[in-house]
Amino acid sequence: MSTAWTARYAARTKGITSSAIRDLLKVTQRPGMISFAGGLPAPDVFPVQRFEEACHKVLTQQASLALQYGATEGYEPLRELIASNMARYGIKANVENVLMTSGSQQALDLIGKLFINAGDRVLVEAPTYLGALQAFNVYGAEYESVPSDDNGLRTDLLEEPLRSGAKFMYVLPNFQNPAGTTLSEGRRHELVLLADRYGIPIVEDDPYGQLRYEGEHLPSLVVLDRENLPRDNGYSIGNVIYLSTFSKTLAPGLRLGWIVAPPEVITKLAQLKQGADLHTSTFVQFVAYEVARDGFLDKHVKLIRQVYRERRDVMLEALKEFFPAEVTWTRPQGGLFLWVTLPAGLDMQAIFNSAIEQNVAFVPGDSFYANNKQEGSRHMRLNFSNAAPDQIREGIRRLAAAVKSHLPGVHVQSELTLKL
Amino acid sequence: MSTAWTARYAARTKGITSSAIRDLLKVTQRPGMISFAGGLPAPDVFPVQRFEEACHKVLTQQASLALQYGATEGYEPLRELIASNMARYGIKANVENVLMTSGSQQALDLIGKLFINAGDRVLVEAPTYLGALQAFNVYGAEYESVPSDDNGLRTDLLEEPLRSGAKFMYVLPNFQNPAGTTLSEGRRHELVLLADRYGIPIVEDDPYGQLRYEGEHLPSLVVLDRENLPRDNGYSIGNVIYLSTFSKTLAPGLRLGWIVAPPEVITKLAQLKQGADLHTSTFVQFVAYEVARDGFLDKHVKLIRQVYRERRDVMLEALKEFFPAEVTWTRPQGGLFLWVTLPAGLDMQAIFNSAIEQNVAFVPGDSFYANNKQEGSRHMRLNFSNAAPDQIREGIRRLAAAVKSHLPGVHVQSELTLKL
Repeated sequence: MSTAWTARYAARTKGITSSAIRDLLKVTQRPGMISFAGGLPAPDVFPVQRFEEACHKVLTQQASLALQYGATEGYEPLRELIASNMARYGIKANVENVLMTSGSQQALDLIGKLFINAGDRVLVEAPTYLGALQAFNVYGAEYESVPSDDNGLRTDLLEEPLRSGAKFMYVLPNFQNPAGTTLSEGRRHELVLLADRYGIPIVEDDPYGQLRYEGEHLPSLVVLDRENLPRDNGYSIGNVIYLSTFSKTLAPGLRLGWIVAPPEVITKLAQLKQGADLHTSTFVQFVAYEVARDGFLDKHVKLIRQVYRERRDVMLEALKEFFPAEVTWTRPQGGLFLWVTLPAGLDMQAIFNSAIEQNVAFVPGDSFYANNKQEGSRHMRLNFSNAAPDQIREGIRRLAAAVKSHLPGVHVQSELTLKL
Repeated sequence: MSTAWTARYAARTKGITSSAIRDLLKVTQRPGMISFAGGLPAPDVFPVQRFEEACHKVLTQQASLALQYGATEGYEPLRELIASNMARYGIKANVENVLMTSGSQQALDLIGKLFINAGDRVLVEAPTYLGALQAFNVYGAEYESVPSDDNGLRTDLLEEPLRSGAKFMYVLPNFQNPAGTTLSEGRRHELVLLADRYGIPIVEDDPYGQLRYEGEHLPSLVVLDRENLPRDNGYSIGNVIYLSTFSKTLAPGLRLGWIVAPPEVITKLAQLKQGADLHTSTFVQFVAYEVARDGFLDKHVKLIRQVYRERRDVMLEALKEFFPAEVTWTRPQGGLFLWVTLPAGLDMQAIFNSAIEQNVAFVPGDSFYANNKQEGSRHMRLNFSNAAPDQIREGIRRLAAAVKSHLPGVHVQSELTLKL
């Protein structure tokens, strides 16, 4: 662009720092690359036939509604289906508690838009989902990070951050992104009680809750919170705003998520959504409804659990087989990710570069820390849902070689030798 | 909601004024209502068969890509198709100039997000598209309104507002929403030159440009602006950010729009879009590409022009037949709307209520004024694309009766008498 135009736009627009992760993910598209970097579902489990039937039905029977403008809140039968599906997990939502969004990412954006003025604080886990940080950063959020361990967010360290006067707390209790950890039931109770005591709303992000591969389902924060609600007030949802999505159970290419919140909050969010994109694609909502209805979603989720459980197990096995003893990792009970911890003092950027040279990709941990990115320097996030089992094994073998080449005092055989 | 929760959320969230228009449009859903209020395309012209073929093709041949996460910038073949379609209107864009958005409304939101800090000024026409005001208001925009007449924005009154140091100017040159007027070619040249002289970028919103029912296509601002660009700099787009959409040519239920801008601006907008919704539905983009390709879009637009031209003509005829001489209206050369001006001193809210009683709806003009809503008190926006011709005639007859009942000194026959 000519200098004059560049200067003109630069003077008028906000400074936006380029997202390192965006550039990183471009590298992972290279042919031959085994990528554990994205959070992509396996395309093998997309219910393509069912989508075809749904499109046919919608277009032959309801085209004039499905292709037209629709209500900002979303397609009512779909919102009803979501409400009744959630009821089986104990979440008592009515239609007026549900707002359809263009993926969960839009839910995060709308929440940022509603709550955050520049300089406001948000409580987050350390580490936390980087897409949430991206969404909130735009509104000038600052963060209080709460440490977490294998049982999720450390509620014993929560009171001081809660006193900071944050606008809300953002938490992923199930199979957390990036750590793969699950918040224990005891801590869930504590978290809900403490948040209520300090008057801080909780934003509960639950994209993976149904993708549990072992153990018992734990109650959502929005369910536990109900116990704190005054009785007989007619409301089923109070201090928790709950987010979920079809991205991991049907297909992310739909961009369909939803927010569950008290009706007054839904009304405000819907007004913001109207200004943001009027409404989410009517056609996609009609199609998703036809795909999900009549119990299909449940059956399909069972299939996904099988496929991803196997991939998780293959990755855990391969980590055990190929990684040196100094390296540890989480053992997720569900979801898409696990979290690897390397010995202190290694150069993660150098390890990442070595991995890319070996045609295997991951996301370095620093992106997932709101405050002290240095905390992430020993970590890598690995996705196990997207690659096929044999690719997972091969990818972990390559990654182990990349890691080993940076361990002090470890004699590394060259790739050439290994191949012999 | 219990008072405690209400207070908690009220203390933490931003005050959002309820949109009058949102409440208004709910009334128009009543059975028997003839609505000229929305901006809805005619469902009769949705190319349903072509959509079915497209869905079938996408799902049988490309499901694993079409249902997966995609690039934030959009599906590249679709961006290429858009770039080459626009070239026929003289807009020389490359793929890297095009960002797909979730409808044009998202384009407005992203532009607001990129440019506007609280208190910043935006130059707008009076009247202007209320959805743009909704999008910009969220970021705390203030407005300089430039008057317009039958030839669009009055460029002779533009210099003073341009000196106000606005962040950008927002203009709809073709078949303006709400006024239905078209910016004359002479004024287009003046506008582009003046904006360049004062260094104010133009946001050119062009949802209806292809829906011209008479007269010659006029060059877009983004085309005229190119004449100001330094030669041989390799860039085809400078001071104008151009917006368009498939909502009026294919179907609004897709929620597919796009932004054309210099690559540096596209890069920043794409980063904001990533935080806002990651990307627009991959599935919808694949389907829209298959629908639009191979010249179908052009053929289809010709059909739409025929249908809407007839409806416009029926509305103009009916206005002439039923409305009293004191009332005037614009004669749009394209688009979806015309703009009625009533004699001064009438109570528009009372007229609106009478109209609703008679089962006919319109949008009162005040919503379309950024600064002085009182300016809108003599105006009503009428949509002519959605209702069938016989409904248009009947609706205008009802509306005329409602208007006449509020004209001073006019003896109005009751509905009962009229029906005899």
